[in-house]
Amino acid sequence: MVGRCRHPGLWKMLTVAMCVALVGCLQAQELRGHVSIVLLGATGDLAKKYLWQGLFQLYLDEVGKDHSFSFHGAALTAPEQGWKLMAKALESLSCPSDMAPSHCAELKDQFLRLSQYRQLKTAEDYRTLSKDIEAQVKQEDLREAGRIFYFSVPPFAYVDIARNINSSCRPGPGAWLRVVFEKPFGHDHLSAQQLATELGSFFQEEEMYRVDHYLGKQAVAQILPFRDQNRKALDGLWNRHHVERVEIIMKETVDAEGRISFYEEYGVIRDVLQNHLTEILMLVAMELPLNVSSSAAVLQHKLEAFRGLRGLNKGSAVVGQYQAYSAQARRELQKPEGFHSLTPTFAGVLVHVDSLRWEGVPFTLMSGKALDERVGYVRVLFKNQAFCIQHERHWAPEQSPCLPRQIIFHIGHGELSHPAILVSRNLFRPSLPAHSWAEVQERPGLRVLGRPLSDFYAYSPLRERDAYSILLSHIFHGRKESFITTENLLASWDFWTPLLDSLAHEVPRLYPGGADTGCLLDLELNGGHLSFSQQQPEQLVPGPGSAPKPSDFQVLRARYRESPLISAWPEELISRLASDIEASALQAVQHFGKFHLALSGGSSPIALFQQLAMGHYSFPWAHTHLWLVDERCVPLSDPDSNFQGLQAHLLQHIRLPYYNIHPMPVHLHQRLCAEEDQGAQTYAGEISALVANSSFDLVLLGMGTDGHTASLFPQSPTGLDGEQLVVLTQSPFRPHQRMSLSLPLINRAKKVAVLVMGRTKRDITMLVSRVGQEPRKWPISGVLPSSGQLVWYMDYEAFLG
Amino acid sequence: MVGRCRHPGLWKMLTVAMCVALVGCLQAQELRGHVSIVLLGATGDLAKKYLWQGLFQLYLDEVGKDHSFSFHGAALTAPEQGWKLMAKALESLSCPSDMAPSHCAELKDQFLRLSQYRQLKTAEDYRTLSKDIEAQVKQEDLREAGRIFYFSVPPFAYVDIARNINSSCRPGPGAWLRVVFEKPFGHDHLSAQQLATELGSFFQEEEMYRVDHYLGKQAVAQILPFRDQNRKALDGLWNRHHVERVEIIMKETVDAEGRISFYEEYGVIRDVLQNHLTEILMLVAMELPLNVSSSAAVLQHKLEAFRGLRGLNKGSAVVGQYQAYSAQARRELQKPEGFHSLTPTFAGVLVHVDSLRWEGVPFTLMSGKALDERVGYVRVLFKNQAFCIQHERHWAPEQSPCLPRQIIFHIGHGELSHPAILVSRNLFRPSLPAHSWAEVQERPGLRVLGRPLSDFYAYSPLRERDAYSILLSHIFHGRKESFITTENLLASWDFWTPLLDSLAHEVPRLYPGGADTGCLLDLELNGGHLSFSQQQPEQLVPGPGSAPKPSDFQVLRARYRESPLISAWPEELISRLASDIEASALQAVQHFGKFHLALSGGSSPIALFQQLAMGHYSFPWAHTHLWLVDERCVPLSDPDSNFQGLQAHLLQHIRLPYYNIHPMPVHLHQRLCAEEDQGAQTYAGEISALVANSSFDLVLLGMGTDGHTASLFPQSPTGLDGEQLVVLTQSPFRPHQRMSLSLPLINRAKKVAVLVMGRTKRDITMLVSRVGQEPRKWPISGVLPSSGQLVWYMDYEAFLG
Repeated sequence: MVGRCRHPGLWKMLTVAMCVALVGCLQAQELRGHVSIVLLGATGDLAKKYLWQGLFQLYLDEVGKDHSFSFHGAALTAPEQGWKLMAKALESLSCPSDMAPSHCAELKDQFLRLSQYRQLKTAEDYRTLSKDIEAQVKQEDLREAGRIFYFSVPPFAYVDIARNINSSCRPGPGAWLRVVFEKPFGHDHLSAQQLATELGSFFQEEEMYRVDHYLGKQAVAQILPFRDQNRKALDGLWNRHHVERVEIIMKETVDAEGRISFYEEYGVIRDVLQNHLTEILMLVAMELPLNVSSSAAVLQHKLEAFRGLRGLNKGSAVVGQYQAYSAQARRELQKPEGFHSLTPTFAGVLVHVDSLRWEGVPFTLMSGKALDERVGYVRVLFKNQAFCIQHERHWAPEQSPCLPRQIIFHIGHGELSHPAILVSRNLFRPSLPAHSWAEVQERPGLRVLGRPLSDFYAYSPLRERDAYSILLSHIFHGRKESFITTENLLASWDFWTPLLDSLAHEVPRLYPGGADTGCLLDLELNGGHLSFSQQQPEQLVPGPGSAPKPSDFQVLRARYRESPLISAWPEELISRLASDIEASALQAVQHFGKFHLALSGGSSPIALFQQLAMGHYSFPWAHTHLWLVDERCVPLSDPDSNFQGLQAHLLQHIRLPYYNIHPMPVHLHQRLCAEEDQGAQTYAGEISALVANSSFDLVLLGMGTDGHTASLFPQSPTGLDGEQLVVLTQSPFRPHQRMSLSLPLINRAKKVAVLVMGRTKRDITMLVSRVGQEPRKWPISGVLPSSGQLVWYMDYEAFLG
Repeated sequence: MVGRCRHPGLWKMLTVAMCVALVGCLQAQELRGHVSIVLLGATGDLAKKYLWQGLFQLYLDEVGKDHSFSFHGAALTAPEQGWKLMAKALESLSCPSDMAPSHCAELKDQFLRLSQYRQLKTAEDYRTLSKDIEAQVKQEDLREAGRIFYFSVPPFAYVDIARNINSSCRPGPGAWLRVVFEKPFGHDHLSAQQLATELGSFFQEEEMYRVDHYLGKQAVAQILPFRDQNRKALDGLWNRHHVERVEIIMKETVDAEGRISFYEEYGVIRDVLQNHLTEILMLVAMELPLNVSSSAAVLQHKLEAFRGLRGLNKGSAVVGQYQAYSAQARRELQKPEGFHSLTPTFAGVLVHVDSLRWEGVPFTLMSGKALDERVGYVRVLFKNQAFCIQHERHWAPEQSPCLPRQIIFHIGHGELSHPAILVSRNLFRPSLPAHSWAEVQERPGLRVLGRPLSDFYAYSPLRERDAYSILLSHIFHGRKESFITTENLLASWDFWTPLLDSLAHEVPRLYPGGADTGCLLDLELNGGHLSFSQQQPEQLVPGPGSAPKPSDFQVLRARYRESPLISAWPEELISRLASDIEASALQAVQHFGKFHLALSGGSSPIALFQQLAMGHYSFPWAHTHLWLVDERCVPLSDPDSNFQGLQAHLLQHIRLPYYNIHPMPVHLHQRLCAEEDQGAQTYAGEISALVANSSFDLVLLGMGTDGHTASLFPQSPTGLDGEQLVVLTQSPFRPHQRMSLSLPLINRAKKVAVLVMGRTKRDITMLVSRVGQEPRKWPISGVLPSSGQLVWYMDYEAFLG
């Protein structure tokens, strides 16, 4: 049967009988069964360059072991033409250097005989394929073990093929189906989700193998085993106390010429960072499962590591574009003369992992085209924890504890030119699998990342293997931990999509490319932000004008509703408000020993919380009491609760004593805001007991587009006047039930700050500027501290529109 | 009058008339008055070496300005002999290089004429001194501005002199008194406190000036002004996000020979670290006051910085002793042949400042005698925050952002050989006072801490000034910020005494001294601990035997009261218990999504809390609920509350969501443990609501010497049996009122761990091992989980005695 569907070509002289005999001789008693591998896109670039070679390697590795094989190349091309193209790829298969040429030639012959081409175009073609496989298995008296379908086709073709495989090509009971996909897996979270949902309607999760070929690169594939085999040495080192920073780098010298129709849609972040570099990051940052050979445990831990990633924002990344790119794009995409692309060909991204292990350790991901060298590596740089007592002229060369200490997973290229794992000699001598890795010979004069090779214990694979051959072997053995699960994929897009969105209109910095780039792209980490360390040079070609920057404007001081108004661009406004709050706090603590601060929830204050948490080292937190202005009637741990926002963005970064935190008691006796639980009265009692005259030192409010403030909405029957300090209210928005400080209580404060940000507030800002004191219509208009101060903080968008 | 009490000697030919004329000519209308400076110990070493020269410099600086002066050398020596000795010191006064020699000689003549010697021995002598000063002031028609008494005498003489000054030498109203003391200011907290109390009975705080002459060294005195004048550049840099570490170093080549009778009592920590290096640390670490020229603000901020110091323990320090020391000690102290001193001549100490600004930044303080070079400096090393995109061969020399970035306050000596402030060129160009500091000339080949001088902006004082001359000027001008206040002194001893106590019997590592020391003393920082980076070499001379180390023993597994017992040295025991708790937590979270942990207060668990907080990165804190086993009826913020210990040692280091923390409600309606507030019932309700079957996953208990556990004491009427889950109890110890989980509730737990540590527990451990289940006599004997597991964790001291 193997020969039956074979088309005329190089091997047409082979008789059916010979094939049968061949399969038969492999089919010893111990055979676990027959595996059919279908390579879709068998005549494409990837197949020609890597996949056929990988399949051949798989055959070499597995022949004579537990399984028999057949290899089906498939494409849309008609049989004869397709076979010709495929045969060309097969002819050039090379033999591993460590195998006797004659033996390899024999096995290559066998492999070629087991390989065939078929056109897969119509539903009927797929049915035929399946029937042929079944017939072969039956005819040869084999047990079918499984089928692998490798999608080496453009993503737009995925769904059709998937539908056909699902409906016609599933093996019978007891045999597995594995489908293998190549990136791109979507363009952002939404498209990745759509594609995943579609594929999910045809395949089970365990049937799908999404390839990121970096996971097959030898130095990358060794990261987890290395961490496992060197647990004892790494246990105390692999954490924020010891690691200064981690760099995950892929530099290319080539540019995008010739591939611009693809590249223009993707750019470097989607092309390299979202997948390859992120996967490597996970292997470095994830908690190490007890058993690293358990796919389930590895995948689970990796997913948990994704959850620990701190969200990216515009300040997390810088982007560049090599100067020739736009011209290349105009040429390849037939764009008009004035066309300038915003697609980044270079990106540096600063990632933080918010776990106890990695808190504060910067992970720098960087990749670019047209750079000065081609090299890929992960570098874990340890803090210098040693102090050498003597003058450095007495230090021991190579091994002094005061020399740099690092672990480098050298993926490839660079001066070293091959995969390697390097551990500074003043760290520890690593353990690596002796059958596959060996110490690198000293090469005088060779330096790796600025240090002589002699500084390191350096190991390389005994035999260099291509990533695809490794991954094909993993697919065959069902090692899912080397592939991207749907959850993993979506977690990655979840992480990257907000950054991609925020960069969509960012003008990348232009760089000449190659060595000429100089230090134009050098990066600088600053707190949670990344920037180019050099100021923007004169723009070399005009890009779209960029928005005015905060520094272009002064803070505007004016009056609004007869109170002071401070207006600025958001960043400056927040930083001004944070400083003003700190000044109030210092003053209050100096005079009264404590500072009572009541904060609102919502999105505007988040940046404020972050600013206070990260930038204000002298803030007297130990003497500050935090109160809530309002709360939604949900458990405190609910993501919707205002308290939760405070917890995530402020409390977990500062040292506020537990008993200075005063969440609203919306959840008592397992109920939410039940009148009879008297939560509002309890909170009022707490305020009366702790806050002198129930007069907060500072109340921070917001303003809704309907003029509400705190959780006091227009026409509210409670809280706008009267004696009650804290009230239950109803919101027109979900969750409807709320608890809120009342206007009379707010107006007792020594200072009230109202923060209003964003274009959507423009209309209400205009309106409220003109109305009188009509809290029933616009609760915000009732804010007027009886003896305190009111200050409005509005960004230009809210104030000037 | 100036001449009246002058004794025969060099200047006896001077007539009274000449003196009077001289004073008269300085006494212009604008004179603010007359200042008398009395140098006690005028013929001692310090006076000869520094103080007379300093007083002369003061005179040169101030002559012809606002004041007139008289200088009184005093000692116990009889007048004639004393004058001879003093005159010798005066003869050798040198003139500053930037002053015309003839002018200086003239002023030196004047200075000598204003100086006299007097014997101060009896109370009468002091009364005479005071009368003489008054008479002189009256006779010359001067207004008295103030009197300075400089105690350059051994501390044992302080109190007598102080009493005499207080009772006889106080100036009249309107004039100030300043008394100046030299270290040592005590030997530990207690002796420093005693001395301070004694001196405080004679002098007001504002009258006392305690000298730490390092505060007068030019590079040290410039730290705060430097931070002030470079606020803009330093604002974003001077914090944990940017500073990698700080080194405060004083290396000496000399040894202690000839001074051993002093040194043997003090050692390097008391001699150098407790005072000089700590003061420097404060200048670096303290929050910068808005006005650095306000003494009050500087002193206040310094004191606050002391409060932020994390407590030292044995693991914070390593000590060494140069090999020849013990022999020198035997010789100088006439000790027998077998005598070995434990006095350290070398110490490295790791200090952490627990503020938001410095959290996690290691400050290394190091000083030693008989080292390879003499040098003193403070080095602030910044994190490398840059990532240079290109291969390092393209980096810009000197200014690349990827080269080390540091600020060095070079106190003196070393290869640079003079005071200097150096700022890496890739940081910023510092601003320094142009009239007194100038850029250092390039000296080819000169390297500072491993980098060529050309890497830095380097500044030196235009004129080198001795520390004492600077401090004398500060005393004269009343600049108290350059001196050690009583609060400051006691805060420093508070900080150092526990370490000194814990090191009292530590055998220092012996080192050969000089360059031969090699890397024997190199330090390594590890988490919160400091160690020698080399293993202890063979001991070169036999010292007292050291205690067995934890690693000398295996963890012992046995049974106690028919339950598993784990016994080990404290460190290993705690680390085992922490691992066991983590394992329970991981298991519980895996199965049930959460982990309910009930913790006891007291001192034993503190090390456990620290271990959990610092060493367990995978602990599922986000899913852990923390409950209290018992609580004292004090407010949660009271230092006595068990919760406070939990807060300080665990909660503030981990990320436990607020709503997973369950303190006992001992403080309701502003009352403590009032029956009618039903706190116990409330807590029981909370447990029933959140903990399935009220069965905690793990309860950690201790055991008191009376056999109590939790807050269940012998004969307690509540909590030992019955239905109640949480009870109010009475303790024989203060505070008497307690809240506690009941035995029946504890016995519902899935696992109960009892931690027992220390020799004091030996007897009860023995006793309880033999008794049956008699909770009324020994509540601990009633701990027997009905279906859970009980494990005893005892250190060898508690278990083996």
